[in-house]
Amino acid sequence: MILNILLLLMPLSSEMSALQPSGLVDRIFSHIDIHQDEFVQKLKHWLAIPSDSSDPQLRGEVTRMMKMAAEEITSLGATVQLVDMGLQELNSGESIPEPPVILAELGRDPAKPTVCFYGHLDVQPAKMEDGWKTDPYTMTEINGNLYARGATDNKGPVLAWLHAVETYKALKEDIPVNLKFLIEGMEEVGSKALEEMIKVQEVFFSNIDYIVISDNVWLSRKPALTYGTRGSSYFFLEVEGAKKDLHSGTFGGVTHEAMTDMVALLGKLVDSSGRILIPGIYDNVAPLTKEEKKLYENIEFDLEEHKNNTGVTKFRQDTKEDVLLHLWRYPSLSIHGIEGAFYGTGSKTVIPAKVIGKFSIRLVPNMQNDVVEKQVVNYLTNEFEKLKSPNKFKVVMDIGAMPWMADINDPQYEAARRAVIKVFGESPDMIRDGSTIPLAKMFQDVTKKSVMMLPIGGADDGEHSQNEKISRSNYIKGTKLFATFFRELSEVHRGMQDQKSEQKMAEQ
Amino acid sequence: MILNILLLLMPLSSEMSALQPSGLVDRIFSHIDIHQDEFVQKLKHWLAIPSDSSDPQLRGEVTRMMKMAAEEITSLGATVQLVDMGLQELNSGESIPEPPVILAELGRDPAKPTVCFYGHLDVQPAKMEDGWKTDPYTMTEINGNLYARGATDNKGPVLAWLHAVETYKALKEDIPVNLKFLIEGMEEVGSKALEEMIKVQEVFFSNIDYIVISDNVWLSRKPALTYGTRGSSYFFLEVEGAKKDLHSGTFGGVTHEAMTDMVALLGKLVDSSGRILIPGIYDNVAPLTKEEKKLYENIEFDLEEHKNNTGVTKFRQDTKEDVLLHLWRYPSLSIHGIEGAFYGTGSKTVIPAKVIGKFSIRLVPNMQNDVVEKQVVNYLTNEFEKLKSPNKFKVVMDIGAMPWMADINDPQYEAARRAVIKVFGESPDMIRDGSTIPLAKMFQDVTKKSVMMLPIGGADDGEHSQNEKISRSNYIKGTKLFATFFRELSEVHRGMQDQKSEQKMAEQ
Repeated sequence: MILNILLLLMPLSSEMSALQPSGLVDRIFSHIDIHQDEFVQKLKHWLAIPSDSSDPQLRGEVTRMMKMAAEEITSLGATVQLVDMGLQELNSGESIPEPPVILAELGRDPAKPTVCFYGHLDVQPAKMEDGWKTDPYTMTEINGNLYARGATDNKGPVLAWLHAVETYKALKEDIPVNLKFLIEGMEEVGSKALEEMIKVQEVFFSNIDYIVISDNVWLSRKPALTYGTRGSSYFFLEVEGAKKDLHSGTFGGVTHEAMTDMVALLGKLVDSSGRILIPGIYDNVAPLTKEEKKLYENIEFDLEEHKNNTGVTKFRQDTKEDVLLHLWRYPSLSIHGIEGAFYGTGSKTVIPAKVIGKFSIRLVPNMQNDVVEKQVVNYLTNEFEKLKSPNKFKVVMDIGAMPWMADINDPQYEAARRAVIKVFGESPDMIRDGSTIPLAKMFQDVTKKSVMMLPIGGADDGEHSQNEKISRSNYIKGTKLFATFFRELSEVHRGMQDQKSEQKMAEQ
Repeated sequence: MILNILLLLMPLSSEMSALQPSGLVDRIFSHIDIHQDEFVQKLKHWLAIPSDSSDPQLRGEVTRMMKMAAEEITSLGATVQLVDMGLQELNSGESIPEPPVILAELGRDPAKPTVCFYGHLDVQPAKMEDGWKTDPYTMTEINGNLYARGATDNKGPVLAWLHAVETYKALKEDIPVNLKFLIEGMEEVGSKALEEMIKVQEVFFSNIDYIVISDNVWLSRKPALTYGTRGSSYFFLEVEGAKKDLHSGTFGGVTHEAMTDMVALLGKLVDSSGRILIPGIYDNVAPLTKEEKKLYENIEFDLEEHKNNTGVTKFRQDTKEDVLLHLWRYPSLSIHGIEGAFYGTGSKTVIPAKVIGKFSIRLVPNMQNDVVEKQVVNYLTNEFEKLKSPNKFKVVMDIGAMPWMADINDPQYEAARRAVIKVFGESPDMIRDGSTIPLAKMFQDVTKKSVMMLPIGGADDGEHSQNEKISRSNYIKGTKLFATFFRELSEVHRGMQDQKSEQKMAEQ
């Protein structure tokens, strides 16, 4: 295992690259370059649809988008089904139809590996008055960047994948992998119905070998593969001192104020150096190995730029490596706020009756939500008892999402790495994401298959923000990357199969 | 001095009461009883005017109310001026006229003491949909209670005072005191222009001996005189960690979060027993004397009811005396909330960039705002330094209001005490108010005269609340109280003058 990691860390030498049959690769790249304007026009066409899943008024647009994509995938020769996802109940009590999910299949060659691509075609809300420089639903190219809502998140990457497939078709070349597609339209509002659907469609997912998600961005100007995300345990800490808010003049000094207990308890969670004070919380954090530490050294990451973008004057850690380690593979605790207390401007002389402190812990392997929940509840219960307060106390975990981490020695990571080198001329950074992306973990848990995040968007694409974009270069090179990945995956997969067969024979 | 307090604590014996000339008192009481329906009708007439000073749309109604009252006072034979208070600038930038202030004068006999009555005729907002059982501007009598906005706060007491004067007039009796009136229409929005006006009208206020305010309520079913209120120092504690809110996934673990510093600092202010942890804060609290402690023993105050009304399960103190001492004559610190942090329901994974903690300290004699400000700023600056945080820190006192305490040996307190015994048949409770009423302190500071709060409203009148009321009994007995107070004040004042003359003669 350790040797394998070291192998991955070594860049492929030019001699090794030269060993690959390059004729077809050249033809693929050339085809994509020649047709890039068509690909950009197709993207413009897709980006004109305001498929904002958060707006019930626009639900029809999301469904229209899904149907348009289904036609596109059908035209590639795939078998496509639009899965009815039933109704979504709105807060108003009204129900509206969920957009259908696309399940598609292209190729069933038992000699080839099967890779399933996940993507989504719904987008975040976008309005000119939010501060867009160009109309969010009219894709506009400025200085090599394609600006529009959904450009990088996630219509661009979905189309790049489809164009990669289309390129093989156009060149009348055999696609080296079997392909499956899972494309949805409710990602931006939580993909709530997806897990159940995947369980029901057991047959569809049973013969998949690899799952690829291309729904995040690089860390820098360098390509990256994402192999992990942190989990999250979100807690509600409730203290109730009275049945109604009291006036601090007429009650200050005689009541056990809920806020006094609250700040005392919140103050016990984390020290000023950022260390979490909950006993046992670090027990299950996987120890950092030398090999893993080495992974961080070559990652391109501009600490100063990261600081300047946010107005943070000083990070807790001094080096790039330390900062990334604490963002990705160590837990952190943040206090988000207090519900029920005075939050306005100015002064109000209230003794809040009932306050709910909100804090969350980002989880890393091998932390478990249920263990963290117990540790937090036991600790705070104990600390509250020490206060000898007559107030009512409760602490509950509101949301728990497990961390996700893939095995970077899995064949698809090796294949992606080789493809990145071929397309971009440099090894990808092996990165994680400090935030929580429940989909990757969910796919891994439900299908038991290898999941990889293979982003093609740049660090400055501004997903979820105003003036979202993808660069023409990333969009076109991303298409080449996916096309190359098919070939590399086929090869690495076969190599692994051969190795297994040899092992088996040796054992017999 | 001590002897004097003890004297005040002894109820007047029936023999002592019998020494008072009672013929006129009987006629006064009888007149008030006979005319009580007229007095109630007059109150109804006043309460029909929606003189809500917080609503610019209703500013005309406040002014109308002031003019109506000015006519009423003129009809008593007083010289009345309506003082132009200029313009009020609204938040919108628009300006509207302030309602005029009534300054009136009745009697200039140098042999009599001059008492100035302060009252206000503006009211809090009131709408049926807030939960009123009857129309807030149509006074409705139910079970001896007169329900309407402004009934107890403060139209009822103002009219009771005027009817007390009217009674002397009707009986063609000499009023035993010179009277001045200061009636305003902006009390509910802070009386902001009043202090300046009082300073300008130096001549009007120069020959006043006593100031009476009847704008609060009793503590229980027993009449009360209020001789003190707590002050308040309100602080804004600001910590800034970034220029914009950050995502706890992508920044949690590497930034010095402003909220971590905030809860650490707020947690250093007060311990779980309610003791304020700021060094020196108790140094200037006047020591509790045995005599003062004795004052608390006879006060009627239902601890259980006070608890039940608010859902508080347990006060910090066990006895009535201890609770009142901590409400009235010890400082307290309350944490009100945090501006800039997440305050909504549900979960949000934000690292707030800049947070402002709000807390205040209730001040008691002889604490000083400027001393408290220094103590708090020094302490928190020091505690923040200990955190070794790179964040920006600032703590400022937003509002400072001094505590107020009157000398309860002053003649007008003795006079009021005697009047209460005559009207209600029992001694008043000598009470304070734990909240801050800046007017009393302002009058005392600017005029250097004795200020007394002489409430006639009941503890359950619900000022500022829905279904505000004054009981018919309190309204009518309050009128008798004020009429009797004039006589008693004249007598006690003369006694004091005689005593002074005798002392002077003895000294010569």
